Amino acid sequence: MKTDVQIAQEAKMQHIGDVASKVGLKLEDLELYGNHKAKIHLDVMDRLEKEEDGKLILVTAINPTAAGEGKTTTNVGLSMALNKIGKRTFTALREPSLGPCFGVKGGAAGGGYSQVVPMDDINLHFTGDIHAVTTANNLLAALIDNHLHQGNPLNIDPKRIVWRRAIDMNDRALRSITVGLGPKGNGVVRQDGFDIAVASEIMAILCLATSMSDLKERLNKMIIGYTYDKKPVTAGELEATGSLALLLKDAIMPNLVQTLENTPALIHGGPFANIAHGCNSVVATKMALKLGDYVVTEAGFGADLGAEKFFNIKCRAASLKPSAVVVVATVRALKNHGGVAKADLGKENMKALADGFENLEKQIENVRKFGVPAVVAINAFPTDTKEELTYVEKRCNELGVDVALSEVWAKGGEGGIALAEKVVELAESGKAEFKVLYDLELSAKEKIEKICKEIYGADGVDFTTKALNDIKKYENDGIGSLPICMAKTQYSLSDNPKLLGRPKGFKITISEVKASAGAGFLVAMTGAIMRMPGLPRVPAATKMDILKSGEIIGLF
Amino acid sequence: MKTDVQIAQEAKMQHIGDVASKVGLKLEDLELYGNHKAKIHLDVMDRLEKEEDGKLILVTAINPTAAGEGKTTTNVGLSMALNKIGKRTFTALREPSLGPCFGVKGGAAGGGYSQVVPMDDINLHFTGDIHAVTTANNLLAALIDNHLHQGNPLNIDPKRIVWRRAIDMNDRALRSITVGLGPKGNGVVRQDGFDIAVASEIMAILCLATSMSDLKERLNKMIIGYTYDKKPVTAGELEATGSLALLLKDAIMPNLVQTLENTPALIHGGPFANIAHGCNSVVATKMALKLGDYVVTEAGFGADLGAEKFFNIKCRAASLKPSAVVVVATVRALKNHGGVAKADLGKENMKALADGFENLEKQIENVRKFGVPAVVAINAFPTDTKEELTYVEKRCNELGVDVALSEVWAKGGEGGIALAEKVVELAESGKAEFKVLYDLELSAKEKIEKICKEIYGADGVDFTTKALNDIKKYENDGIGSLPICMAKTQYSLSDNPKLLGRPKGFKITISEVKASAGAGFLVAMTGAIMRMPGLPRVPAATKMDILKSGEIIGLF
Repeated sequence: MKTDVQIAQEAKMQHIGDVASKVGLKLEDLELYGNHKAKIHLDVMDRLEKEEDGKLILVTAINPTAAGEGKTTTNVGLSMALNKIGKRTFTALREPSLGPCFGVKGGAAGGGYSQVVPMDDINLHFTGDIHAVTTANNLLAALIDNHLHQGNPLNIDPKRIVWRRAIDMNDRALRSITVGLGPKGNGVVRQDGFDIAVASEIMAILCLATSMSDLKERLNKMIIGYTYDKKPVTAGELEATGSLALLLKDAIMPNLVQTLENTPALIHGGPFANIAHGCNSVVATKMALKLGDYVVTEAGFGADLGAEKFFNIKCRAASLKPSAVVVVATVRALKNHGGVAKADLGKENMKALADGFENLEKQIENVRKFGVPAVVAINAFPTDTKEELTYVEKRCNELGVDVALSEVWAKGGEGGIALAEKVVELAESGKAEFKVLYDLELSAKEKIEKICKEIYGADGVDFTTKALNDIKKYENDGIGSLPICMAKTQYSLSDNPKLLGRPKGFKITISEVKASAGAGFLVAMTGAIMRMPGLPRVPAATKMDILKSGEIIGLF
Repeated sequence: MKTDVQIAQEAKMQHIGDVASKVGLKLEDLELYGNHKAKIHLDVMDRLEKEEDGKLILVTAINPTAAGEGKTTTNVGLSMALNKIGKRTFTALREPSLGPCFGVKGGAAGGGYSQVVPMDDINLHFTGDIHAVTTANNLLAALIDNHLHQGNPLNIDPKRIVWRRAIDMNDRALRSITVGLGPKGNGVVRQDGFDIAVASEIMAILCLATSMSDLKERLNKMIIGYTYDKKPVTAGELEATGSLALLLKDAIMPNLVQTLENTPALIHGGPFANIAHGCNSVVATKMALKLGDYVVTEAGFGADLGAEKFFNIKCRAASLKPSAVVVVATVRALKNHGGVAKADLGKENMKALADGFENLEKQIENVRKFGVPAVVAINAFPTDTKEELTYVEKRCNELGVDVALSEVWAKGGEGGIALAEKVVELAESGKAEFKVLYDLELSAKEKIEKICKEIYGADGVDFTTKALNDIKKYENDGIGSLPICMAKTQYSLSDNPKLLGRPKGFKITISEVKASAGAGFLVAMTGAIMRMPGLPRVPAATKMDILKSGEIIGLF
């Protein structure tokens, strides 16, 4: 069987200018990055202003498991299938981070015959957007420490600096560090740490900004810390806004690539799905909607985190109205949610499947709360039995939800036609009446309680004293009404990663609340949320190589 | 008067494909990065193998002063002037680092009417090469700390790790840090630090490698630290080579841009000129020599550091034979060497000029030790008096060296024709008989003494016990015969930055010797060499902006 990288390297890519021209873009709209990648100038949107928007399809999933669900693969495959049935369709995805690529994942651009290409470039530096975000993040950090060193005219309390440094790497040793050691010339000693770059607020801002001026407004508002008398200090006050924006002048332009079947794909921005909102950029989604009949886009993690934030944060901020949602599951993953260990997932187990189905059921319910109709995509595995597949279909039908078997991994777009037809039926039914879950007028506490109870199924929420104080501080600072970005484990509907399926009788603990005032949300933290992954015992990096022929080994 | 960025933004750039085709490159040789930047595939060299090499001209200078010498400006202007007099000429330069750009320099791509463009892109991310180097450097760091965390099978002594992290930023707070703080899951606590990315050994390797396989061999040999029983541990032993090479697969390709007069410019690689060798990449220089009649290239800092390392390290490693050297000076800088403060440099001062001239005299002597004929370029300033200019010319003529007034800053290539004609005369005279200063058979100690006495004019060298032990260790480890990379202040011929002009009666102290086994040199450190600059009181970053029109402010 061919590996993903082999399939990708055999792809018959079209020149990106040809991919662009098929959807009405001109060569002068593009900044080419080689023959198969391009950035698209934002002023294209001025020309397209009067075009009608296409239909926006969200791909989400059950809570992720060790078994893998294939959400990106389904996203890519569905977009190819929609093209096959005559809909001009874009894929819109996040950019992969280098950290997981060198850690366990070895790359992320879909799989099998449903990939975006050039997968090696997409996984390695791509068009430099994440590096630009990292640089902007760290320029701001350097300006902060320089401010302290040069006499600290803004009266910043070194103990209350909330801005952390960033690196696009899995590097646990940088989670907690001391900077400024050594002689006086090395600056002020303080505790600090690095987050993975995609967890930077700047990445979230890049993905929520609608224009360069909106980007600058958001950068300007970022809170970097507090003064000795507890007043917020912003990036604007450090006179950092202009240089940060300058560093992001190319990064804000969406990246155009293609799928294995030459479907246009906008891959742009990659915010973390826990402490940020986990969706590709607003500018990419909006541009794709102007250029295509359909746009298939993905939200991070399961529907409890990813879809909730896609709706409540991204769709709210950008006035997007999704037409349908695809909830991806696999028989294997459902059995895992039903208590089966990874090694035994290849065996039929109807009891575990029934138990695990409840996770899918809850995620379907969650999607419906936003007024958008859903279809379930079962990402097919060779070990799935007929009885298992029939069972899932029956249960979904009882919930009034259609199911389609997706074979896009093995067959590309052809394997997704059944799903595509159901998606079109739903999207064109006019059933979607999108609404957000909560109004901004609710207090932060009420918003959090609403999400935890209605989306996670919790009995209630415990706020630590710190969390309550945080909320009070943000209310005093005038940012208390921002929407909520939940930071919770992706593995469970609850805040305990071990509780699979559809846990009941649990409460959510909010340990603290952070402000991303530039991105425009308050981050509610449930327990210890990883913002800097580590490398595993045998990192994927140690298996990678590039041969004399140019052949790449170890990306998969 | 127009600023550099204004002049640059008004440039009439040609499509980079047209620039390329004028020198015999085909569109398929290029990876376009927009319309005005491209990477050139290395396999071009196979096609050009039988072409004769053009003539290599080195631009170097007196010891740099606060007055500024305009070496890059001269380099760019001379290449344009050579084109004007009918020589197909390339400019070959280093890539600027973001650190100084946001610190004091605000960009570096020549000046006035002798710039390379697009200067904003060249200064901001460019084609991502430095980011790739940073990432490779830090992946190796993460693999080291992960190795310690995962049980340390190679028996690495955490106290003997020599590999430091890197960031393309001026950030003094990162010079000396503690990593791995917090719970056990955060890895092993140890002292560490960040160097500016261009000081990374990987940058030096990128610039000395002749091919991807040579790059991999060099990466494989990098010493990251020592075991508890003091044996060197390499990147190869950490199984890092393949992934590092993969990260550098695009970075190894030279970047083609153009000057304001559309002269082709290869801007590729940017190693620090103190702890590394300070020249653009070997692949760029070699490619330019195959494609052009003339290649004008620059070495970092003054001739004592830059030219010495260009000859002894780069030309030796790559079998390059330079045909002529341009030594850049200004009347202002010579007066500064003669003891005049910056504020008073606009006034005629014949005594100071005479004293300061000795610095130029010594650098001319230095260049001649390598068997290459020199010409002095006086980079003209409006405050220069006729008497001052005549004096410099007379003194040079007494040394048997030609002088040309260079007005390339104000006039572009037209202002460099006199210089270009002298360069051609020298280069085509066949006078050059290039030789390195020392044989590799000499011991490290002998090599260092030879450089210090013959190039710096020192009376002798004091080695600290640490330095002697370092040398002994490298000799035992089989890398004792590598060439020497001197790390010394750029401001003086001595190791004391305050001793301007031509100091006499001094000794050089070698405090320690570091090994860059992959780059292929031993770094002899004289005192505290800055590997991570800091930001000034008012960083250039705070004056930068990008306007709605796209106009850029604050790069100059």
